[in-house]
Amino acid sequence: MTESCGILIKGVGQNLQIPVGVRVIDATNKLVIPGGIDTHTHMELAFMGTKAVDDFHVGTKAALAGGTTMILDFVIPQKGRSLLDAYNSWREMADPKVCCDYSLHVAVTWWGDKVKKSIRKIKTFLGKRQLDGLITCFPFFLPCICPKWFYFQVKTEMETLAKEKGVNSFKMFMAYKDVFMLKDSELYAAFAWCKELGAVAQVHAENGDLIAEGARKMLSLGITGPEGHELCRPEEVEAEATQRAITIAHAVNCPLYVVHVMSKSAAKVVSNARRNGRVVFGEPIAAGLGTDGTNYWHKEWAHAAGFVMGPPLRPDPSTPGFLMDLLANDDLSVTGTDNCTFSVCQKALGKDDFTKIPNGVNGVEDRMSIIWEKGVHSGKMDENRFVAVTSSNAAKIFNFYPQKGRIAQNSDADVVIWDPKMKRSISAKTHHQAVDYNIFEGMECHGVPLITISRGKVVYDDGQLQVSPGHGTFIHRQPFSEFVYKRIKQRDQVNSTPCFLNS
Amino acid sequence: MTESCGILIKGVGQNLQIPVGVRVIDATNKLVIPGGIDTHTHMELAFMGTKAVDDFHVGTKAALAGGTTMILDFVIPQKGRSLLDAYNSWREMADPKVCCDYSLHVAVTWWGDKVKKSIRKIKTFLGKRQLDGLITCFPFFLPCICPKWFYFQVKTEMETLAKEKGVNSFKMFMAYKDVFMLKDSELYAAFAWCKELGAVAQVHAENGDLIAEGARKMLSLGITGPEGHELCRPEEVEAEATQRAITIAHAVNCPLYVVHVMSKSAAKVVSNARRNGRVVFGEPIAAGLGTDGTNYWHKEWAHAAGFVMGPPLRPDPSTPGFLMDLLANDDLSVTGTDNCTFSVCQKALGKDDFTKIPNGVNGVEDRMSIIWEKGVHSGKMDENRFVAVTSSNAAKIFNFYPQKGRIAQNSDADVVIWDPKMKRSISAKTHHQAVDYNIFEGMECHGVPLITISRGKVVYDDGQLQVSPGHGTFIHRQPFSEFVYKRIKQRDQVNSTPCFLNS
Amino acid sequence: MTESCGILIKGVGQNLQIPVGVRVIDATNKLVIPGGIDTHTHMELAFMGTKAVDDFHVGTKAALAGGTTMILDFVIPQKGRSLLDAYNSWREMADPKVCCDYSLHVAVTWWGDKVKKSIRKIKTFLGKRQLDGLITCFPFFLPCICPKWFYFQVKTEMETLAKEKGVNSFKMFMAYKDVFMLKDSELYAAFAWCKELGAVAQVHAENGDLIAEGARKMLSLGITGPEGHELCRPEEVEAEATQRAITIAHAVNCPLYVVHVMSKSAAKVVSNARRNGRVVFGEPIAAGLGTDGTNYWHKEWAHAAGFVMGPPLRPDPSTPGFLMDLLANDDLSVTGTDNCTFSVCQKALGKDDFTKIPNGVNGVEDRMSIIWEKGVHSGKMDENRFVAVTSSNAAKIFNFYPQKGRIAQNSDADVVIWDPKMKRSISAKTHHQAVDYNIFEGMECHGVPLITISRGKVVYDDGQLQVSPGHGTFIHRQPFSEFVYKRIKQRDQVNSTPCFLNS
Amino acid sequence: MTESCGILIKGVGQNLQIPVGVRVIDATNKLVIPGGIDTHTHMELAFMGTKAVDDFHVGTKAALAGGTTMILDFVIPQKGRSLLDAYNSWREMADPKVCCDYSLHVAVTWWGDKVKKSIRKIKTFLGKRQLDGLITCFPFFLPCICPKWFYFQVKTEMETLAKEKGVNSFKMFMAYKDVFMLKDSELYAAFAWCKELGAVAQVHAENGDLIAEGARKMLSLGITGPEGHELCRPEEVEAEATQRAITIAHAVNCPLYVVHVMSKSAAKVVSNARRNGRVVFGEPIAAGLGTDGTNYWHKEWAHAAGFVMGPPLRPDPSTPGFLMDLLANDDLSVTGTDNCTFSVCQKALGKDDFTKIPNGVNGVEDRMSIIWEKGVHSGKMDENRFVAVTSSNAAKIFNFYPQKGRIAQNSDADVVIWDPKMKRSISAKTHHQAVDYNIFEGMECHGVPLITISRGKVVYDDGQLQVSPGHGTFIHRQPFSEFVYKRIKQRDQVNSTPCFLNS
Repeated sequence: MTESCGILIKGVGQNLQIPVGVRVIDATNKLVIPGGIDTHTHMELAFMGTKAVDDFHVGTKAALAGGTTMILDFVIPQKGRSLLDAYNSWREMADPKVCCDYSLHVAVTWWGDKVKKSIRKIKTFLGKRQLDGLITCFPFFLPCICPKWFYFQVKTEMETLAKEKGVNSFKMFMAYKDVFMLKDSELYAAFAWCKELGAVAQVHAENGDLIAEGARKMLSLGITGPEGHELCRPEEVEAEATQRAITIAHAVNCPLYVVHVMSKSAAKVVSNARRNGRVVFGEPIAAGLGTDGTNYWHKEWAHAAGFVMGPPLRPDPSTPGFLMDLLANDDLSVTGTDNCTFSVCQKALGKDDFTKIPNGVNGVEDRMSIIWEKGVHSGKMDENRFVAVTSSNAAKIFNFYPQKGRIAQNSDADVVIWDPKMKRSISAKTHHQAVDYNIFEGMECHGVPLITISRGKVVYDDGQLQVSPGHGTFIHRQPFSEFVYKRIKQRDQVNSTPCFLNS
Repeated sequence: MTESCGILIKGVGQNLQIPVGVRVIDATNKLVIPGGIDTHTHMELAFMGTKAVDDFHVGTKAALAGGTTMILDFVIPQKGRSLLDAYNSWREMADPKVCCDYSLHVAVTWWGDKVKKSIRKIKTFLGKRQLDGLITCFPFFLPCICPKWFYFQVKTEMETLAKEKGVNSFKMFMAYKDVFMLKDSELYAAFAWCKELGAVAQVHAENGDLIAEGARKMLSLGITGPEGHELCRPEEVEAEATQRAITIAHAVNCPLYVVHVMSKSAAKVVSNARRNGRVVFGEPIAAGLGTDGTNYWHKEWAHAAGFVMGPPLRPDPSTPGFLMDLLANDDLSVTGTDNCTFSVCQKALGKDDFTKIPNGVNGVEDRMSIIWEKGVHSGKMDENRFVAVTSSNAAKIFNFYPQKGRIAQNSDADVVIWDPKMKRSISAKTHHQAVDYNIFEGMECHGVPLITISRGKVVYDDGQLQVSPGHGTFIHRQPFSEFVYKRIKQRDQVNSTPCFLNS
Repeated sequence: MTESCGILIKGVGQNLQIPVGVRVIDATNKLVIPGGIDTHTHMELAFMGTKAVDDFHVGTKAALAGGTTMILDFVIPQKGRSLLDAYNSWREMADPKVCCDYSLHVAVTWWGDKVKKSIRKIKTFLGKRQLDGLITCFPFFLPCICPKWFYFQVKTEMETLAKEKGVNSFKMFMAYKDVFMLKDSELYAAFAWCKELGAVAQVHAENGDLIAEGARKMLSLGITGPEGHELCRPEEVEAEATQRAITIAHAVNCPLYVVHVMSKSAAKVVSNARRNGRVVFGEPIAAGLGTDGTNYWHKEWAHAAGFVMGPPLRPDPSTPGFLMDLLANDDLSVTGTDNCTFSVCQKALGKDDFTKIPNGVNGVEDRMSIIWEKGVHSGKMDENRFVAVTSSNAAKIFNFYPQKGRIAQNSDADVVIWDPKMKRSISAKTHHQAVDYNIFEGMECHGVPLITISRGKVVYDDGQLQVSPGHGTFIHRQPFSEFVYKRIKQRDQVNSTPCFLNS
Repeated sequence: MTESCGILIKGVGQNLQIPVGVRVIDATNKLVIPGGIDTHTHMELAFMGTKAVDDFHVGTKAALAGGTTMILDFVIPQKGRSLLDAYNSWREMADPKVCCDYSLHVAVTWWGDKVKKSIRKIKTFLGKRQLDGLITCFPFFLPCICPKWFYFQVKTEMETLAKEKGVNSFKMFMAYKDVFMLKDSELYAAFAWCKELGAVAQVHAENGDLIAEGARKMLSLGITGPEGHELCRPEEVEAEATQRAITIAHAVNCPLYVVHVMSKSAAKVVSNARRNGRVVFGEPIAAGLGTDGTNYWHKEWAHAAGFVMGPPLRPDPSTPGFLMDLLANDDLSVTGTDNCTFSVCQKALGKDDFTKIPNGVNGVEDRMSIIWEKGVHSGKMDENRFVAVTSSNAAKIFNFYPQKGRIAQNSDADVVIWDPKMKRSISAKTHHQAVDYNIFEGMECHGVPLITISRGKVVYDDGQLQVSPGHGTFIHRQPFSEFVYKRIKQRDQVNSTPCFLNS
């Protein structure tokens, strides 16, 4: 492929032979690092009655301006809908727009537990007309009576995605009751299936039942503001679900990836599990590392609403530092943003009821700077760990290392020239995202990406973006990432007794 | 009441005036302690296709021989059956037989979550005939479509039990899937209702989904022996559920009582919750304090099967000592036995499949000696703590203190003369229970009950039992135990914001 | 003794026969509780070049006004001085002044490790003149060369104090280097000796070496204000020493009492040790339960300096609530105040150097209210636990229960009528202590002592104090408190192998 | 240098041009990994009245046979002796004998706290003659009176070692009272000095006072066998010291390296400190990862004595697995052996008194296999982590990466061809060490080094060693390892307030 000429790194070393006409960038006193990989974004997501304002075009451009050269977005089918269809529509949406490489996780938002009775038996008894009537009247009736159909559909589609479509990670929700949430027995089945496919099981870990009840209670108490969002889902709701997910995953010896670890207690649960030898990865996000939940009590509604996301940021102001310590120490593994941006006007949908505030914050542009400032500049981690948590570990876990996440011959030419001394101030006025506010507004950051190179092309230089929609491509990912599955397989092989024994 | 003459303690002190003709017992160098209270028994329970061999007669006689003068048994209605009916049949079964006082917890084995559609709508659509047909065909269909009916029934019956029938404690199962298990949302509703009634919510804390899957896996691996029982439900399955129950109970500020805490990890969860101010009580049992799960690997099937109970005893041999340390330290609060005895023949129902071994062990007779030996004799607790964990705390939590659990004027004359120096060896050959083996077989115990006085009558003396069926009576318990609810109420009053905020 | 007529409680119960002329107090809707016992005071202590302003007269009067009817003060001999002499001078100081009963702990501020060479050898070699010269020149020379002399003196005096003088508790300092601090090997010897005498070993647990170095560093950095006091001894300095003391005490199976537990991390160390079966008691104090170390950063120097004490209050504002949770849960056992008050002028001795600010805060008057407000009113503990932690547990640990700490026939008539509903505001303007500020200034407290009865006499009523110096007496305490030593002895007896094995 | 031709790796990659006459090794299905680095050995150490039997010749040959191509040995001067002299004699001993590369840590076995009086003052007073007499009579007199002299000597020598002699790591003992042990204030000073020199502070973390007392107690109880060795220094003695060392090191913001982490509780202390951001490294050793302390109770004295080392192996049989989990998880960082071998005859010096058993075990030959078997084969870690903990991390911490610990162009040609499938059985009969027993006797290991290449030469091949004394050389190490000091420096720079603030 001639196209790939510019894509790969030709060589690394001293005294390299430089072809004529090639631009030479002087990086003296700068760091040359692999482009950032954001493990968690939701570009132009339709959610809670509206749509995220950063689309795949603007969102990925902003990413590049911040030193991130790849994002992993989530395909989220509606409950009961085809995973493959959703995957296809996400591809159609993203492919023509993306300015940097990307890949897709797929959410498994529904499942079937097991078959109690055959559908035929019902048909025989009721007749087809009545059955159809029932289904029309009670949309959840059929899956309830005959989950097997759906079960097969989901399993088959997951297999197709893993084997043919480049998807090796599936997210399951323990929250968003009646919308995306799976039951424990469904989680068990889904995790077991991920294991068999060699995929990474991801969870949004919050107890959806408790959130539903908590939200109802808050509203009944007349608490309608953004603070109610946190009050109805305190951190123990997150920690409990995290513990539960880990326990279930371990029962099937499936690797687990906990998205957006937001609280000290949930992070402790992840850390302790890792100490016990569980193959678990925790992903803190830029928002959780850079700011905190005291903002929900901000006197200005718009300010407070801007921070609403799930799980919420935590009011304990020592949370970000704690999460960063664990990230530095490899108790947490990798960073994303959960970038899912809604403008102030959209947030206003929940003016009188916090449960209607569209959930989501920015981060895709600022993640690298936040982690540098709070992690490296503060002395919590060194530059090598910075590269690991912003880039390499993502590539290892999701199985595209060393294609990305590394500067080496034949790796993709996604490179950032980072100035560790330069300072900038984050602001919605200057950022490149579509959203009209920034949760890090006013934060002073040391560490700035001077130049971003994506797929061998300088796309960001001296504050200027030069890139067109479609510059990026979809990255196919193979199952059975060695980084994740090596130990899993070995354990299966060595233990004649089942994994339950390991605990 | 003339009857009560013999029932109450007339006075405590020195130089008491002793009426003529009254027997004087010399307790020099002995301890005079309140009779033991066993918080957890299942006399003559019909379970897993058979019936526990110790009935209310033999079982309570054995209790007296061991220094226990009151038991709390569990009413366990089948799923979908009336709680009140079950309560009544338990009373009818027990009242004429009990040799010591007793009371009853009631299990809430089913619930309704919320009503999605009215049943009328279905009736209109299907017609009554089809509906009846459906119900006949699919026994779980109706509660599924119209939980409201059942929901009301359960709630109303719990209220009646709490207000009129002397029941202030309800047990919910997180295990025994499809049999007794409630879902999280049902637990939430049940806990909330307990809170409103002033009852103590009790839980059997194990993740029923994981047990079901684990059991299936063991059998598929060809593991059919008693060791499979533990392997399919390792301690993290217990710890996870314990954490979940505590989180849910806290969401409604309901006091929680965790029955049979069997593992170090579950006990830690309880302890940590108490440190965080949660109103939670943990109940270890005689089996867990006196022996361990290595027995499941015993080469003799009958021996191993004899220890099968749920949650299982743990293979880690440091478990009993650990639980005793926490019991000594008030991290755990009170002790029961889960006495539910099946003979070796009955156990043999599961000869080829551990899931069919009737679950249950002995303990009602030996509990006091076990705790003395492992707790007091070992130097882990002193005599005062012994009385607290074998008697007083039970009376405080379940709200019949100082009627029982204390030696004081006007308290019930349930008294034990305890010889701290005497030794005995536990054996099925000499015990008074109906069951034909003893899980503590051969254990040497210091500390022996010399004389047991129940309701003012010497019923056990010098190894001889002298008591008739019906000697004991049912103890009515009022809701809103001060020991349990004082803090709960105060928190509700002080916090204008909901309990979620406390976390 | 006729005097004792008024001292003891004659009877408790309903329908008591009341002698003519006896005052009847109506306590409807009030609580009648045992008088408070403050386990930790330093009245009129000469310290850091000045003397505490609350003497035994004013200090104990203030105690009575706050519902406290007994204090335990500390005899603190200078290094190298006789413990007995110090004890005697404390008695002479206190006996004529105290308005309530009191007792004395004695600090062991010096020790001898072991003898390497005989002093005679040195004498022979040097001659007496040179030796005397050496001693004059180098005051620490002799104890260094011949610790045996001193060692015997300390041991003998401790024995006399324990057996004849009513002292069953000795405090060792791990801080105040070169002033009071003992080395680890000396702690070992002192703990071993306490164990043999049946005394409770108490420790001030802070790493004195680190404090000394930290203070030097702060001053060298130009940090001279009160915040430097905390910065030079952060909580890990306390936690480390607490862990060390517990380890050493366990090595000799000696019960340990950690005075003034001030930080979350030190409290966790105590709690964990208790969980592991260690006989350890932790004493939080009123200051630590009612306020926090953010005050050291107060812009007004006098305000900040007023909170200086050792160990310092902690800047983490969640500390008081955390300590109260542990106190409620019996992870911490009993409460004192470390009342050692210096006026603002005295504090000014350290205007330019925080190491010269006399260490100490108030508390003896407000302790009961603080614990009620933060513990009972907040719903963290109930009234029974309040009595335990303010009174009964102190009496049990220090072995004068049930003489005090209980309302029962023949117990001392130290009684408080407590109004749980009344509110008051704490202020230096209204308090009864001699010190001219109050660290709890402005705090609103529910729960007020209406009437205080000391030794059978109403000494505080409706805001008026009516008591004379010398009203109180010294309480002799016997060694081998059952509450403390029962388990210790049993363990020694049962374990043929040494206590090291228990760990 | 022509010599260096064979020393460095010329190139790594596919289709390399191979010079004529060069041997080509087929490593199909084998792993090609960096040679192992043993961070902790004591070859031919004179200790406890005898001398380790594995000298630098035999010991390093055995290392090569096991896949280890570099060792770090300890220079241990006697108390009061010159560090430089000791260093020189170690070099003289080792240089002509070593068969693989090596480097040296230096132990700081004595220190001076601070100067109280000038020596001149004493001289003036006593005259020189008396002073000399004193020194002769009381060998510890002078350092006691004038530590300044010694203090300067130690500091100066450490500086020389760090700047000129290639030593960037100094070990301090908290055990071996009166022999090597430093006091806390001395540790503080030593750590502060390490920090200034850019060296890694290492500690042997056990409470020496408690060990001394414990040993005395055991002997007085008549416990003279090897089990007494563990009983007198249970794991809390190790955990306490570990916590103390970390606290002291943090007070001066000095990186800390805890040698031979032997117990679960000490390992937890290290892990927790890392979670809190402390720059601490924990080193488990082969013995602790591969066997346990139950051996001290072995009925055969010689067997039991063979395992005696300090800190002891722990009787809790779950210890090795726990340590391996933490090693896999980067809670522990790197592995050594503490190889210090004494023959059965030498061990017999302590036949009647365990305190006289020479401390030490084997390991230098078997370390790689033990970690492979228990770590990789068991599925706890993958091959990459294996390389990190056996080689790369050592090179990074001690600052000779990427010279060693990596396979890359220009790195030293220390390479091992590892067969992950082959099995071997460990035995004294077949091992290459001088010692006549092996603590891993009979252990089956998967994973065998087929070929070991040291300095570009095949020195071990197909079970045959071909190497001469002096083949290896001393590796100079520079201070301020980036891996260790990067964060340290950054913290110093960012924090205007001292490191005490970080806690």
